[in-house]
Amino acid sequence: MVEEFKVTPWEVEGVVDYDKLIKHFGTSPLTEDLLEKTAELTKSELPIFFRRKFFFSHRDYDLILKDYEEGRGFFLYTGRGPSGPMHIGHIIPFFATKWLQEKFGVNLYIQITDDEKFLFKENLTFDDTKRWAYDNILDIIAVGFDPDKTFIFQNSEFTKIYEMAIPIAKKINFSMAKAVFGFTEQSKIGMIFFPAIQIAPTFFERKRCLIPAAIDQDPYWRLQRDFAESLGYYKTAALHSKFVPSLTSLSGKMSASKPETAIYLTDSPEDVEKKVWKFTLTGGRPTLKEQREKGGEPEKCVVFKWLEIFFEEDDKKLKERYYACKNGELTCGECKRYLISKIQEFLKEHQRRRKKAEKLVEKFKYTGKLAQEMWNEAIPEPLKRS
Amino acid sequence: MVEEFKVTPWEVEGVVDYDKLIKHFGTSPLTEDLLEKTAELTKSELPIFFRRKFFFSHRDYDLILKDYEEGRGFFLYTGRGPSGPMHIGHIIPFFATKWLQEKFGVNLYIQITDDEKFLFKENLTFDDTKRWAYDNILDIIAVGFDPDKTFIFQNSEFTKIYEMAIPIAKKINFSMAKAVFGFTEQSKIGMIFFPAIQIAPTFFERKRCLIPAAIDQDPYWRLQRDFAESLGYYKTAALHSKFVPSLTSLSGKMSASKPETAIYLTDSPEDVEKKVWKFTLTGGRPTLKEQREKGGEPEKCVVFKWLEIFFEEDDKKLKERYYACKNGELTCGECKRYLISKIQEFLKEHQRRRKKAEKLVEKFKYTGKLAQEMWNEAIPEPLKRS
Repeated sequence: MVEEFKVTPWEVEGVVDYDKLIKHFGTSPLTEDLLEKTAELTKSELPIFFRRKFFFSHRDYDLILKDYEEGRGFFLYTGRGPSGPMHIGHIIPFFATKWLQEKFGVNLYIQITDDEKFLFKENLTFDDTKRWAYDNILDIIAVGFDPDKTFIFQNSEFTKIYEMAIPIAKKINFSMAKAVFGFTEQSKIGMIFFPAIQIAPTFFERKRCLIPAAIDQDPYWRLQRDFAESLGYYKTAALHSKFVPSLTSLSGKMSASKPETAIYLTDSPEDVEKKVWKFTLTGGRPTLKEQREKGGEPEKCVVFKWLEIFFEEDDKKLKERYYACKNGELTCGECKRYLISKIQEFLKEHQRRRKKAEKLVEKFKYTGKLAQEMWNEAIPEPLKRS
Repeated sequence: MVEEFKVTPWEVEGVVDYDKLIKHFGTSPLTEDLLEKTAELTKSELPIFFRRKFFFSHRDYDLILKDYEEGRGFFLYTGRGPSGPMHIGHIIPFFATKWLQEKFGVNLYIQITDDEKFLFKENLTFDDTKRWAYDNILDIIAVGFDPDKTFIFQNSEFTKIYEMAIPIAKKINFSMAKAVFGFTEQSKIGMIFFPAIQIAPTFFERKRCLIPAAIDQDPYWRLQRDFAESLGYYKTAALHSKFVPSLTSLSGKMSASKPETAIYLTDSPEDVEKKVWKFTLTGGRPTLKEQREKGGEPEKCVVFKWLEIFFEEDDKKLKERYYACKNGELTCGECKRYLISKIQEFLKEHQRRRKKAEKLVEKFKYTGKLAQEMWNEAIPEPLKRS
């Protein structure tokens, strides 16, 4: 196949064709049936991420629902690589994860891969990624997880992850890792080992694991599914999300390394106004006259895409906006102003919660119920007695 | 060079030419000057391991002595891969290490690589190597280290080693690891990462590290010396020992996997008698008559080698035995009986101390002064308060 786009855990390029990606990765489409079943089991309306197909693909999500229905339960696992400030694109999957935790009442493990980011980013020091870990954890906590059912752990600190990764690291040889992740002779040995560390949390409980994450992380789960059962665990399930585009383009994904193309969670209302106003790609026509005559192209518009993915909760309003644009009734300026106000509103609330999160870090990392259970197994008995 | 022998961290084959090995590995011979200086600084007689040149090579041992003399100090590091019961060949370097700790009064870190042995041995489970870890630790403690200056740690448990290995794992790429250790496409990713774990303890203190170990471990230290200074630490120093031959041959090294060729530290007096009597290679002649006429060949005799390396403390007696053999005054039976009594005597005392070691495990691993300091840094503050 000629690749017009590229999706790996470290790179997303081009305009992604998600139907092709499902075939290419060998995953399954997230069907209406599964969504209805989700609504039924949770006795809830589906959240925007499901209604709008931001999550579009899965592995074994049907089995997760079955495990839940039949009382075996499951657990959630997701993560974050702390290489810089978090932006809108990073946080959206966490809101979906929160919804799943809340509705199914399950444990959630969040891995902060400060080791990975130090190893993979030539210019970052280990201290840098540890600092970003703390910073990013504030954003994650602000989403509002259950502190007694959520364990946020940093690999450099919850190093029991190393012990848990060892049996996994005996299942993967260099040839397999190379095929899946494209390692070369120049890859650092820490990078080569890292897949075992990212896979380890899928074995935290003897239940099926469900991972809500962008589809670029799927190669890890595919690898896990090759040997999970031989280690006495379940093949992990996954829910795959699309990528949130940057302000300037519908191709690739929002990148924290290009400040003008991303909205950071710490941006001020002025930053938001300036960036959206100045940089956002729209589906508008060159002149207002043409816009009125031919109508806009919402399919080619980042403003519309952002409203669709996250910022316009109301399905009816989104539909009306779509047709108003197509019919030339809307100007791009109007849409941008609407998006700006929506983002500002969201960030105001997020930043308020982020401030409060400072006092909750200890609970999520060490003293909450689930965190305590996990650390309890990590510290040898004689040290607890002393 | 045509290799008549082979020395890697996993294999020792053939009759090792130690002078060639010094050139091949690029190490330095342990000179009389350095040994005299050691005696002078420690105000002690040199122990058998130094007098008989069982330790024969080094890296930067001169700088270790200088650091000691000038008050900067140093620390000791060695280790053990727990894949089975320990034998005589495994324990001898630990006696040398004990002498160094005692005479120089320095800290000692002993790494038990239960991760490595599980990863490298196809047929061992992780539980197997963890069990052998406990078993081997008893033998190590029996040697008599200072419990407040010695930290014995198992990689599967003192997993902070993972965090410490990460900056190292960013310094080594697959190509380097392959060149040094011979990894292939089939090598497991845990094996490929392991050099970073074995190197990490050389950075436990901001002093120079001295590693007394068999020379087959030197490739790890050579690699460490390539980048240690770029990470703000010292290049490690090392003292290299020869290999203890098996009962049946002067080539290769004693192997725990061939029970009849090794004396285990848990062998009974009867085991010792039977094995030495039945299997030991000597330098004797086919008939007693020939032996009386031509004399024996102590250079080709494992009995003599074992006495030389460890079991005949008395230099004068060893020399007398050498000439008595050469002159045909001794029979191999006499020498075997002498060695049997020496080994029995040693094992009786070792096994008595091994029994007592059961009560000391906790101190060496967790509650001794040095162990406490190390664990104290490994456990996050909020967990200590709770």
